[in-house]
Amino acid sequence: MDNFSQILNQQWQKELFLCVGLDSDFQKIPEEFRKLPVAEGLFQFNRAIVDATAEYCAAYKPNSAFYEGYGLAGLEALIKTNAFIREKYPNHLIILDAKRADIGNTNLGYAKAAFDILQAHSITVHPYLGQEALAPFLEDRDHGVFVLCHTSNPGAGEFQELKINNQDLYKIVATRVDQEWNGNQNCGLVVGATYPEHLGEVRKLAPNLPFLIPGIGAQGGDLERTVINGLDRNGTGIIVNASRSIIYASSGLDFSTAAAREAKLLNESIRKIARENGFGRKVE
Amino acid sequence: MDNFSQILNQQWQKELFLCVGLDSDFQKIPEEFRKLPVAEGLFQFNRAIVDATAEYCAAYKPNSAFYEGYGLAGLEALIKTNAFIREKYPNHLIILDAKRADIGNTNLGYAKAAFDILQAHSITVHPYLGQEALAPFLEDRDHGVFVLCHTSNPGAGEFQELKINNQDLYKIVATRVDQEWNGNQNCGLVVGATYPEHLGEVRKLAPNLPFLIPGIGAQGGDLERTVINGLDRNGTGIIVNASRSIIYASSGLDFSTAAAREAKLLNESIRKIARENGFGRKVE
Repeated sequence: MDNFSQILNQQWQKELFLCVGLDSDFQKIPEEFRKLPVAEGLFQFNRAIVDATAEYCAAYKPNSAFYEGYGLAGLEALIKTNAFIREKYPNHLIILDAKRADIGNTNLGYAKAAFDILQAHSITVHPYLGQEALAPFLEDRDHGVFVLCHTSNPGAGEFQELKINNQDLYKIVATRVDQEWNGNQNCGLVVGATYPEHLGEVRKLAPNLPFLIPGIGAQGGDLERTVINGLDRNGTGIIVNASRSIIYASSGLDFSTAAAREAKLLNESIRKIARENGFGRKVE
Repeated sequence: MDNFSQILNQQWQKELFLCVGLDSDFQKIPEEFRKLPVAEGLFQFNRAIVDATAEYCAAYKPNSAFYEGYGLAGLEALIKTNAFIREKYPNHLIILDAKRADIGNTNLGYAKAAFDILQAHSITVHPYLGQEALAPFLEDRDHGVFVLCHTSNPGAGEFQELKINNQDLYKIVATRVDQEWNGNQNCGLVVGATYPEHLGEVRKLAPNLPFLIPGIGAQGGDLERTVINGLDRNGTGIIVNASRSIIYASSGLDFSTAAAREAKLLNESIRKIARENGFGRKVE
């Protein structure tokens, strides 16, 4: 199965809401992997993390920057990681967190990289160039497009909270994506857990879009408010990402069991809040 | 010499304003190169284009998407192309058109890829996440940061022309970058030639920032209005990019002489307009 929405819906029906962020940095992975060449060390670390956490998560989100920083070796590690997930865990969604966006057909190169070479099911993109520029992504029915809406960083508001006729820019982005960009049912929004009030506002404006929610874990977002504010009317609709708090849960020999424990705990916490707030109402 | 502003200023003093966009697509390059493996074919095509045009341009701008679409081979071609330019044409500016932007330290991976691995002098970035997110780029004094301001695509206005207290978003971006982000004198703006009026507005708001101006050539921007509206008070300040109209000027055996002719013509046209509109007033 290869369709973005189908995979997501199946994972939600299994009460899997967690996304494990594969922000794997060669300098930070356990020593045993740092003895290997970069491509192999990064890949083997990722494989161990994926094997340990697959039972407890819906998706994996490698952030392209961490791999690009290692050049050819990094790209090789990323290609192998995604191929491994596709092969062994075909029901898990791969979100390439690449935050791309160029104009028109130039995006075909990025789409080819993300979906053909890296075999991701979906990608994150910047909204600044508008819908017309993103056509190569939006017209591809099978692959998901997570548009940056309100990001998790401290300075996110500089432009995202500018007011247009009394409405914040991020809200305009949310409404546009929900009502105009989503003709192929392949859009989602990136909304940070570090701004749970804003997350709730975005849910009101985009009742049916999947949300990719970074900012839980190391960035300190409040899980309960995040989940309650993010859930849609079916008690689903959210993919909550944690990266460092899972993949670096331990730097010792127990790194994979520690990652499994953190992932299990976090997905169970989300599941509990979701059950108390509408999950199962419509999904049977 | 390795400093972004120094290189730019030296090129302007030589009356070089043109940037050749290395949007090299393996499917579109002359047949002799398509007989080679992708990495080698793309690199050798680029090398021939660079050798043919270096005399007539200030800068090269490879667009990352075209290379990423070919995976490891594309990345290898891009690494080799930039290394070649650095070695043989050290006075030419390399602008990596990658349109990146992630949050905080994640950008370190992109900066490492752009400046260490790919050896670019500067990069294009999205403004949506704000100044705080872009610190890893902005704090790097030697490397340039071209912030997308008003892009050249037909749908650029969807968000960029939204009004905040009667002022378009792209103008707010221009003012912020000019007055707040440019503490290290390493910022520039991307302003499309397809909107020459807006280009003039941006010049008023950002009198001293270098402009990277795409949209001339295949996209059809008006050269004279673009140059007049883009020039700063010294009659410099602009890097006018053309990609397809130069690199694909001919698909035959004469592709490099055709590219040289187009590049020479275009830089001479810009030079003429610049001389008539202030160039040389302050620069001696």
